[in-house]
Amino acid sequence: MKIYLAGPEVFLPDADAIGERKKALCSQYGFEGLFPLDTQIAEQRSARDTGLMISEANETLIREADMVIANLTPFRGASADVGTVYELGLARGMGKTIHGYSNDPTPYTLRVLDHCGAASADQTAGELRDADGYKIEEFELHDNLMIDGGILHSGGQFLLAQKKAAIESTAAFEEVLIRLSR
Amino acid sequence: MKIYLAGPEVFLPDADAIGERKKALCSQYGFEGLFPLDTQIAEQRSARDTGLMISEANETLIREADMVIANLTPFRGASADVGTVYELGLARGMGKTIHGYSNDPTPYTLRVLDHCGAASADQTAGELRDADGYKIEEFELHDNLMIDGGILHSGGQFLLAQKKAAIESTAAFEEVLIRLSR
Repeated sequence: MKIYLAGPEVFLPDADAIGERKKALCSQYGFEGLFPLDTQIAEQRSARDTGLMISEANETLIREADMVIANLTPFRGASADVGTVYELGLARGMGKTIHGYSNDPTPYTLRVLDHCGAASADQTAGELRDADGYKIEEFELHDNLMIDGGILHSGGQFLLAQKKAAIESTAAFEEVLIRLSR
Repeated sequence: MKIYLAGPEVFLPDADAIGERKKALCSQYGFEGLFPLDTQIAEQRSARDTGLMISEANETLIREADMVIANLTPFRGASADVGTVYELGLARGMGKTIHGYSNDPTPYTLRVLDHCGAASADQTAGELRDADGYKIEEFELHDNLMIDGGILHSGGQFLLAQKKAAIESTAAFEEVLIRLSR
């Protein structure tokens, strides 16, 4: 079983080492991990062409995979990394099982309030709005409902770290692998 | 041709009115617009169940659509709304053509720097990192490369507003419809 390892680790300084660590964990539980940086893309004529070629290579890697495990730890805001979320949707549209984990167990509603403020100090539950007046989701889910829903409807799991941990921590990731190997 | 109208408009106070306006524009150019709030979901036993049912209804609506036009105007950060991006990936995985537009023409690299700062004042082009040390994409694209790449590889268009406009502005959206109706 091949698992595509989606996540914002590709933006970290030690991305390759993290990828190797996650792939080694996959092997340990009987899976083959596919990491986005496995496909080395040569520099193209323009930066734009290089970017588009990386996208194509990642889509191909996801098509090859049997399932996805996505690192959905908040990245640059209250929600998961958009590139990771695109890949999760893509795999779901292809009919694959998608799984996710987050190293931040803070409820989504609180995370949005933390990052985006509140429309006013005194708000009614069920009617929360952020400082821009945008509705804040109050569904007791881990992120935007399309993410939680997609994972659950695909038959996947969305696991939370017990305590907040660094974005590259692999404890919750390993817990997903353990459950899948049972 | 049915077009699923993905976007963060669902979080705006006048979401229903915006949906009606976008659907009327679709009709004007010979299309049928499907808006996420078209499916009225009754409140379930728990908030969680309601959220998951909305997700299921939206996935069904996307499956019914022939294509997607996503409002990819930055939402709560440098990138597009994650729910919208999930839906874009989902439709792409289902083999549909996906289109996008943004009411903010600021290049993505600059938007990330604006929102997330820089690792240091003096950085080399091609090596940009944000204040957390995370790599900043420099591919001259409009958002994370998976978004731009997915749209282009599906045969779709990613259009930018000529001048920065409100998130609910429909000028760039209408321009996508005009191009599709030709």
